[in-house]
Amino acid sequence: MEKARHLRELLSSGRLIRAAGAHDGLGAVLVQEQGFDAVWASSFEISAARALPDASLLSMTDYLRVAVELDRVSSLPVIADCDTGFGGALNVAHMVAEYEAAGIAAVCIEDKVFPKVNSFVGQGQDLLGLPEFVHKIRVAKESARSEDFVVIARTEGFIAGCGVNDVLERAHEYADAGADAILVHSKASTPVELLSFLSRWQRPIPVAVVPTTYYAWHADDAAKAGVSLIIYANHGIRAKVNAMRSVLRSIQQDGSTVNIEGEIASMKDIFELQRLEDWLALNQ
Amino acid sequence: MEKARHLRELLSSGRLIRAAGAHDGLGAVLVQEQGFDAVWASSFEISAARALPDASLLSMTDYLRVAVELDRVSSLPVIADCDTGFGGALNVAHMVAEYEAAGIAAVCIEDKVFPKVNSFVGQGQDLLGLPEFVHKIRVAKESARSEDFVVIARTEGFIAGCGVNDVLERAHEYADAGADAILVHSKASTPVELLSFLSRWQRPIPVAVVPTTYYAWHADDAAKAGVSLIIYANHGIRAKVNAMRSVLRSIQQDGSTVNIEGEIASMKDIFELQRLEDWLALNQ
Amino acid sequence: MEKARHLRELLSSGRLIRAAGAHDGLGAVLVQEQGFDAVWASSFEISAARALPDASLLSMTDYLRVAVELDRVSSLPVIADCDTGFGGALNVAHMVAEYEAAGIAAVCIEDKVFPKVNSFVGQGQDLLGLPEFVHKIRVAKESARSEDFVVIARTEGFIAGCGVNDVLERAHEYADAGADAILVHSKASTPVELLSFLSRWQRPIPVAVVPTTYYAWHADDAAKAGVSLIIYANHGIRAKVNAMRSVLRSIQQDGSTVNIEGEIASMKDIFELQRLEDWLALNQ
Amino acid sequence: MEKARHLRELLSSGRLIRAAGAHDGLGAVLVQEQGFDAVWASSFEISAARALPDASLLSMTDYLRVAVELDRVSSLPVIADCDTGFGGALNVAHMVAEYEAAGIAAVCIEDKVFPKVNSFVGQGQDLLGLPEFVHKIRVAKESARSEDFVVIARTEGFIAGCGVNDVLERAHEYADAGADAILVHSKASTPVELLSFLSRWQRPIPVAVVPTTYYAWHADDAAKAGVSLIIYANHGIRAKVNAMRSVLRSIQQDGSTVNIEGEIASMKDIFELQRLEDWLALNQ
Repeated sequence: MEKARHLRELLSSGRLIRAAGAHDGLGAVLVQEQGFDAVWASSFEISAARALPDASLLSMTDYLRVAVELDRVSSLPVIADCDTGFGGALNVAHMVAEYEAAGIAAVCIEDKVFPKVNSFVGQGQDLLGLPEFVHKIRVAKESARSEDFVVIARTEGFIAGCGVNDVLERAHEYADAGADAILVHSKASTPVELLSFLSRWQRPIPVAVVPTTYYAWHADDAAKAGVSLIIYANHGIRAKVNAMRSVLRSIQQDGSTVNIEGEIASMKDIFELQRLEDWLALNQ
Repeated sequence: MEKARHLRELLSSGRLIRAAGAHDGLGAVLVQEQGFDAVWASSFEISAARALPDASLLSMTDYLRVAVELDRVSSLPVIADCDTGFGGALNVAHMVAEYEAAGIAAVCIEDKVFPKVNSFVGQGQDLLGLPEFVHKIRVAKESARSEDFVVIARTEGFIAGCGVNDVLERAHEYADAGADAILVHSKASTPVELLSFLSRWQRPIPVAVVPTTYYAWHADDAAKAGVSLIIYANHGIRAKVNAMRSVLRSIQQDGSTVNIEGEIASMKDIFELQRLEDWLALNQ
Repeated sequence: MEKARHLRELLSSGRLIRAAGAHDGLGAVLVQEQGFDAVWASSFEISAARALPDASLLSMTDYLRVAVELDRVSSLPVIADCDTGFGGALNVAHMVAEYEAAGIAAVCIEDKVFPKVNSFVGQGQDLLGLPEFVHKIRVAKESARSEDFVVIARTEGFIAGCGVNDVLERAHEYADAGADAILVHSKASTPVELLSFLSRWQRPIPVAVVPTTYYAWHADDAAKAGVSLIIYANHGIRAKVNAMRSVLRSIQQDGSTVNIEGEIASMKDIFELQRLEDWLALNQ
Repeated sequence: MEKARHLRELLSSGRLIRAAGAHDGLGAVLVQEQGFDAVWASSFEISAARALPDASLLSMTDYLRVAVELDRVSSLPVIADCDTGFGGALNVAHMVAEYEAAGIAAVCIEDKVFPKVNSFVGQGQDLLGLPEFVHKIRVAKESARSEDFVVIARTEGFIAGCGVNDVLERAHEYADAGADAILVHSKASTPVELLSFLSRWQRPIPVAVVPTTYYAWHADDAAKAGVSLIIYANHGIRAKVNAMRSVLRSIQQDGSTVNIEGEIASMKDIFELQRLEDWLALNQ
């Protein structure tokens, strides 16, 4: 578990750690190329890449396969977005055993009811009872073989409409149950919820945020406010959709790709991302 | 095999059929959205999406899984790029049985030696003996349960440096062995090789082309020259690389995503591609 | 969906249909060899073959992969044991779409809460509310593209301790919601519960049973009592455990396999089950 | 790579190490239960369990998935039978990277041409050129990240009809190329070939054997002759076939399972193999 140890060190380093979402190996390579510290195996991206909603339709098997794919082609640690843990406490135990054995550095589980729906959908954001989720965290920690394996507890309290007191209570209990970091999610258009949380956060473990809606918050300001891990969770796939759509539309309109050749990566670029020369050098 | 029948009808319709490459379900949805006739399960795209070279490293299992993923979220027929057929004649038989049973409309196999390397790599483009590849086509056709299932034979003759006479001989023999279409590949920067081929092509079955290097050839001109199927095999992933790289770079430079929000798809766009509302309507 | 149509015809034929459980392709071949009518993709067997409990730990992806494996090597229809449908109504819709597209003839879903535990475990047999499960059946039926696809509703009423009135109410509502057959499960050591049910069953659709605990009930008697489908759900894997354990023990005790060669299948036997000669005949 | 280190220590311990074949997690649990030292992820068993011939039809993806399954439920090291390495030198590099990262302790590659056919089939046992296979071993060793990862080179020289001189030459070169152990295969009905090999073997690395046809050779005699690792490669699945066939036949003949209940494992037995109580104890 070298990568888990490395991630653990990063999270306690005092500097802001940046992760970016990926849904395939190529994405992980680009995340590393651009200098991020970790790859977020985003369940939103992974389900969107299947053209299926982020609503617990894909299974642990599907998500684990992708997390492994990300891990194998990058030297960065992978933080796997594991939704609710795929069911109850037994599912969480199975999940931790499988992810850890597969070489994934960290899992993140959230305190919503299974099956969940994406946090940016208006409806259906029901929280699991606090004791039930605390139990899941305990089971997760006990199921890990190595002390290095990282378990992140994500609270959807703000998403579900709770006030900061409730969110803090949950987060404090999750930390006390052994969570290695707390991800506090919010869909406000400013970091106001997070700032109210961070000003009253009383545990020495790292706090993670996902600035999808409060996107104007500068990473330096987040760091100053006490954030340890910032996750850009979905921008890769959102970039991809517009780019692919535009190129496909051009082909249909123009009857050839002559007008888009300058905008898209060359075959040679792709060969380099595939490390083709290194591979071919293995031939006799 | 409704989709196979549909593809077969398209190919004999007399109009030019357009396919575009995809490497995941989202890509297939965009290919359909932009009005293409079929999805090309590109082994180049699928291996690049794994950040692995297009060199027979991924297995039939890997490629079939993706082809199925493309098929399930689109109503277009999927044409699966199956490289050399993943080994010898037995592998081809297994491949046809598995792809057909899984609902894939068509497979395309090429006359290079296994393991192959991508056609745009300079080295290692060895052709399989003509009788051996003819045998593969026969086995492929005999292994299909339905007469609708489409087997495309791809000749890499031009890629391997053969002249047009050799390429024509191969293509004619492949047609005589039962191939439902012939894909003639070329890495010339103009369609000169294809034009020489098409002017002497003597069978009534469709010819397919992949205009990666001779990208200025207009589809209408290809159609006039006798092309039935044009495959834009790798532009989606090439668009994706540049777009994702650019967005990830901006995040690092800007410290937030505020400057890129206008360039990338909104969460709502993604929800629509996932058909989220249709799915949520299934709740009680 | 030829196999779905065939299964549908079998179930309405008036004669008793026999299915047997399998957890891998070899099992499906043996089930067919011994004259059964259908293969039961048993979630108990499939999880036991993984040495994991039958407690919703394996995912739809895992179960579907095995169901496909069974389907591909046998000409029998596969009836997939799909537990609770892997979550809520959306999961059921996804499940039906995936299983049907993959060529599976039938799915069976049960009216317990997700995550479930095997019916022969004493604890944790909580039933889903009747309206919720009726909704699942409706969603399952609406999600099928073909009218031939078979949806079996399984009631765990007797397992959960309900009386025959409640079980009948559930079964009648499930039939009215569109279920193509009703599986009534029981862990009594005699068919007493089933007989009380069958004597009052008032719908024209088939009833299925799983005689694991009331194993002395003769199939002819079940048929006379009104059973249409009898599923021997777990005997294959139970036979396998004893046989494999015995052979492995002998090897350790004897220091060679000389004493067991007569008890185990020969390599030639296995080659025949693999249809090796047919495959090798495909070589040039 | 604790398991790789453990296997390495076992192989240099001086005592005879025993491995037994498995094709699913349950088999691995039984292999461990009966006191074996390692699990052999047998490509013969794994393909037979799919009811497909052992002829390079299944892919690396398929075999790796099963090897991982065996690894996860047993604390024994898994030795993965990787046939020819699934193609050429690049495939071997990919294979080693994937198997090692997945936690598999050892891979075994053989010196036949891809696609291969099972060694006990009369025809088609063509050897790869010696330099080509030496290159594969070198690539395998260089591709491993840890020095503990075990690469076993298997020579099919005797299977292909070579004399002992040729087999020794190959084995010596494989050892010199870095192989951690040599597996010498033979289909003679006595260990005569192996004895001639072992008496002239001149390297300090372990020799492995697979006593399928020379099954009367006692393990103690093999150890005395210089064997370090003995692999019972296929007996589990051969036991399973006869047992499952017999049970399925009885059900059809008897109309119930009443006569076989005493012969097969009880549900309780299976629950124990699944460690059901341990799992249920994780519930709150």
